[in-house]
Amino acid sequence: MDWSIEQKKVLVQTPVFQLEEVSLVQNSDQKPVPLPYYRLHAGSWVNVFALTRDSKAILVRQPRVGMMQMTLECPGGGIDRDEDPAVAAARELEEETGYRAGRIESVGVISPNPAIMTNRLHMYLARDCYLPEDRRHFPDLTEQIEVRTLSLEELDVTMKEGGIHNALAALTILMSRRFILQN
Amino acid sequence: MDWSIEQKKVLVQTPVFQLEEVSLVQNSDQKPVPLPYYRLHAGSWVNVFALTRDSKAILVRQPRVGMMQMTLECPGGGIDRDEDPAVAAARELEEETGYRAGRIESVGVISPNPAIMTNRLHMYLARDCYLPEDRRHFPDLTEQIEVRTLSLEELDVTMKEGGIHNALAALTILMSRRFILQN
Repeated sequence: MDWSIEQKKVLVQTPVFQLEEVSLVQNSDQKPVPLPYYRLHAGSWVNVFALTRDSKAILVRQPRVGMMQMTLECPGGGIDRDEDPAVAAARELEEETGYRAGRIESVGVISPNPAIMTNRLHMYLARDCYLPEDRRHFPDLTEQIEVRTLSLEELDVTMKEGGIHNALAALTILMSRRFILQN
Repeated sequence: MDWSIEQKKVLVQTPVFQLEEVSLVQNSDQKPVPLPYYRLHAGSWVNVFALTRDSKAILVRQPRVGMMQMTLECPGGGIDRDEDPAVAAARELEEETGYRAGRIESVGVISPNPAIMTNRLHMYLARDCYLPEDRRHFPDLTEQIEVRTLSLEELDVTMKEGGIHNALAALTILMSRRFILQN
């Protein structure tokens, strides 16, 4: 890339992200790039396509303030500092749904939006998931997250009808389905 | 959804987006939701998986300031005010690559990130694309966007290796591939 950051200014700092305005120069001739650009820094994210031992998809229904509606998505969230992404995926799955992963595999790492986001999305497939006897997480009780299990046929219909609301969740599902077919 | 927006404050206004902080209340009991939330307003986006008449994928390589690197993605961009999303998709394809769509079909509408983004991503499959005789767009000359055509086999390898950098582009590709198989 022929551009470098010449100057940056923090516009907003919140507990979960930082928004920055940057001025760029062209490396080749040191000329300024005309417009300012914006970069949104957040910790990296995980998203998990989780299947029960009888191959049902484990999804979460939750209120989302961007869309201002209940959404149906995969479990997922932010990776803690110094946390391994696969560990974060298993943790988020269990915290949000109560299910523990039998095995967990990476199906890809990608930018959620390379134009503005500086972080990465780590996508995982979790198979043979089960509700452990020492279950500690009961997300239904919080009323914020509801757990839904769908057969793969039901999931296909739901996706076709636009019932999976989050692009990053939909991508994790499709990458996982391809991974299962190819491995 | 049991939450409503009680108050909002614009934190940042730029030509391409607005960042807002919102306070929420629970509809059921009018109690405030503890934390502030953030909403990023931008116009809705289109992303196009475009295939030439001989079934090569038309991709763009461009500098992206979030990732601060050259990325390989689908053509795409913002929908103009009052513009039909399918028209925007055909326009962005032609502006960014020079190719004109023979036919264009919707493969889905989804939120790019329902937690913070208020807009939508409209995904299209453009088939039978060709370089028209009255070609007006020569993106190679601008040095910002380079056009790459890949066979579907090459695209599969590229995706598997993480060579498609944008989650929204990867989703558009996989939704389009499914659409082709199912229709």
